[in-house]
Amino acid sequence: MSNSSSPHDLEPAGTDAVPLEANDRPWERLEELADAGDPEPLSEYLDSLTAGDQALALSRTDEAHHQLVLTTLAVEDAAELLRHLSESQAAELVESLPAEEAAAIVYEMPSDEQADLLGDLDDEQAAAILEAWPRADATAARQLAAYSDDVAGGLLVREILRFNRSTTVADVIETLSENADEFRDYDVQYAYLTDENERLVGVVPMRNLLFARRTEPVADIMISDPLSLLDSTPLDDLIEFFDTHHFLGVPIVDTEGRLLGVVHRNAVDYEATRAAENDFLKSQGIIGGEELRTMPLMQRARRRLSWLSINIVLNVGAAGVIAIYQDTLAQVIALAVFLPIISDMSGCSGNQAVAVSMRELSLGLVRPTEMMRVWMKEAAVGLVNGAALGLLVAIVAIIWDGNPYLGLVVGVSLFFNTLIAVSIGGTVPLLLKRLGFDPAVASGPLLTTVTDMCGFFLVLGLATLMLDRLIL
Amino acid sequence: MSNSSSPHDLEPAGTDAVPLEANDRPWERLEELADAGDPEPLSEYLDSLTAGDQALALSRTDEAHHQLVLTTLAVEDAAELLRHLSESQAAELVESLPAEEAAAIVYEMPSDEQADLLGDLDDEQAAAILEAWPRADATAARQLAAYSDDVAGGLLVREILRFNRSTTVADVIETLSENADEFRDYDVQYAYLTDENERLVGVVPMRNLLFARRTEPVADIMISDPLSLLDSTPLDDLIEFFDTHHFLGVPIVDTEGRLLGVVHRNAVDYEATRAAENDFLKSQGIIGGEELRTMPLMQRARRRLSWLSINIVLNVGAAGVIAIYQDTLAQVIALAVFLPIISDMSGCSGNQAVAVSMRELSLGLVRPTEMMRVWMKEAAVGLVNGAALGLLVAIVAIIWDGNPYLGLVVGVSLFFNTLIAVSIGGTVPLLLKRLGFDPAVASGPLLTTVTDMCGFFLVLGLATLMLDRLIL
Repeated sequence: MSNSSSPHDLEPAGTDAVPLEANDRPWERLEELADAGDPEPLSEYLDSLTAGDQALALSRTDEAHHQLVLTTLAVEDAAELLRHLSESQAAELVESLPAEEAAAIVYEMPSDEQADLLGDLDDEQAAAILEAWPRADATAARQLAAYSDDVAGGLLVREILRFNRSTTVADVIETLSENADEFRDYDVQYAYLTDENERLVGVVPMRNLLFARRTEPVADIMISDPLSLLDSTPLDDLIEFFDTHHFLGVPIVDTEGRLLGVVHRNAVDYEATRAAENDFLKSQGIIGGEELRTMPLMQRARRRLSWLSINIVLNVGAAGVIAIYQDTLAQVIALAVFLPIISDMSGCSGNQAVAVSMRELSLGLVRPTEMMRVWMKEAAVGLVNGAALGLLVAIVAIIWDGNPYLGLVVGVSLFFNTLIAVSIGGTVPLLLKRLGFDPAVASGPLLTTVTDMCGFFLVLGLATLMLDRLIL
Repeated sequence: MSNSSSPHDLEPAGTDAVPLEANDRPWERLEELADAGDPEPLSEYLDSLTAGDQALALSRTDEAHHQLVLTTLAVEDAAELLRHLSESQAAELVESLPAEEAAAIVYEMPSDEQADLLGDLDDEQAAAILEAWPRADATAARQLAAYSDDVAGGLLVREILRFNRSTTVADVIETLSENADEFRDYDVQYAYLTDENERLVGVVPMRNLLFARRTEPVADIMISDPLSLLDSTPLDDLIEFFDTHHFLGVPIVDTEGRLLGVVHRNAVDYEATRAAENDFLKSQGIIGGEELRTMPLMQRARRRLSWLSINIVLNVGAAGVIAIYQDTLAQVIALAVFLPIISDMSGCSGNQAVAVSMRELSLGLVRPTEMMRVWMKEAAVGLVNGAALGLLVAIVAIIWDGNPYLGLVVGVSLFFNTLIAVSIGGTVPLLLKRLGFDPAVASGPLLTTVTDMCGFFLVLGLATLMLDRLIL
């Protein structure tokens, strides 16, 4: 954010060493510099921090200092700072600012990140920001913000080089040279050509300009009928597109063929990483958006609790099976030791199957309709691992209790319940995907409930059948 | 892979529509075309498939057809096909080929992907491939393969434009124009300049060539002392670097400053996504590398079982607590219904805290040393959610059993155990990270074991103290 690395400066600066060492308490220095109120040293200090330490320092300062930091910095530097933060942290900071200051800073961000941020703000602040912008920009931003984050329209940038097809090579080079600073950004590797109706007609890689005569129309060196995608193209198809094509960006058009902007490979990669991270969070029970420990306590507690409440209801349902067999349990109390083991181990086996299904779904190696195929593959593993785990737990039971029939009951139960758990774990993500639910969120609780019920039923049902042998 | 999209062809071809519709059984058509033995239609058909469908079709054909597909294709097309597959699938295919054919295909891949693939092959096949290559290439590939995947040396490509500092602008442009096909790949946006000792001295963005006089030495338009990173730079620092700097690639040097190659932003983004996906797999108990259902049964069963075996030992340990209190349990059998609920719910609460800590660690919002801070933040949530869940389960117990003391025992136990679970869940990832373990792998089992032990101890210990009240 010092002059040596403004947002559009591609060039590495010689003196700008990469800061890899962690500062001990960066927030203290940050508050000092914000209090001093001089933009230069503040911007230089932030520049010297890693993105992680910037986020850390800001998360540990109070709201008054957030405002001070953002308003002390030049607007471009403040915008750049926001871009380094996670989306929830950026939204928090922008909401803490007066609308006018916020409007000036957000205005400096690239259009795709503007759209994301505006979507994350509360409606009032978002409206106030757009109010303060020139009408045309506000309209365009509203259009982009209306797209969801996971379609091409929500990921595109409008800041591209676009020329009419009749422009000459010399004119393009002149435009480039006049706006060298702005166009040095890595986002600009192609020029896009349109006809009179703003419809995309061709793409010119910058390098082609090197070999072209300056008097010819740039349309002569363009690639005509370039690949383009609709604004409604979903993220999965964008990932697929960049997997197959070695492009840095793809032009996005509306249904009329009018050029709306470009989706860059980086934006798609970023969303792909975020999707994978979110799957991890969701599988562990963090639903409804990222949680940071700087968020208000009640917000954190409430979000987690909504998930836990569903789980406890499911759990109580499963435990009801135990209640039915209470008499058996009272007579063979040793069974109570093994109930949680059966429940936990079946859950573990089932979760492994869930993870493999999620991975294969994301690689395209299995289709949501192929439940039978997945079930057969899982059943094979379930037979092997169920036998191994069942034997293990049977030996433990026999050693510990001395009664081989107890070993038989828990061993056979774990064997069958492992089989059930991998069958459910393998197929449930496919089923949920087909039904339009998010497999990362719902697979775990469904799996746990059903395997718990089956496990308790197996152990206690078998024990009831063999009650005479178990009470010696 | 048809002529219109060879690996180095940046230009979108007009007729090459994006294939978004899934073919029903692509593997059948693939086998037909492979049997026919004509490279053209085969390559065109593969081209028409999405990367996911390519992977799917190959995973459903037998080994004989794998060989046929890869050897029928032109080597560049075969190499391109491998690049679209997941690493484990690509390695499987290459291992099924005769060494000579494999060598020719792998030779066509970019050096970073070569290194990855060679590392994934069994040693014999890797050695046989390198044997078949020109000595210099084999030596270089061995060097890259020696780096681990998560340092700069393992991610760099050697295919870069490098010139001596004394080269003229005209010479560089001529080289570009002569090798236009090769250099049209998106990987080439900069030329790198070295001195006589192969040490990096400058970087020339391609676009600067547009504005330069052709007779001047290219060193005149270079950015001198460019940012560079050591070959030993870890992935986290590379992610950080590209977060902070808007570059497409960063030159990598050895400790003498000699230019080894370039790490591209895409390679780092790819590894970041893979790391996030792996965290998800590991948290669910898929350890030791990706599992695909096409892998041999015993390999899949063995890998999963090694993880399950550790879990069952930990589980048996925790259940031992129940055994100690067997007498109490026999007298108040209703407690047995609640033991699995306490165990499951504490596990859920703890996993939420694990997920938040992992996320904050990856964003840099918390440092591994700040265990006290995290604990206080988690304890606050634990108090709120513990109270809510404890109350809920107490009500269930009272309604169901009619004895308010049973409600008291299970409610208080769940309250305290939620507090314990979030405390452990929040801090264990930090502790594991400090000790150099992988928090994604080890947090879950550690958490479950300790919270189970504490939960069983709380419920049964409290019940023992209040035994008179519970037996009415």
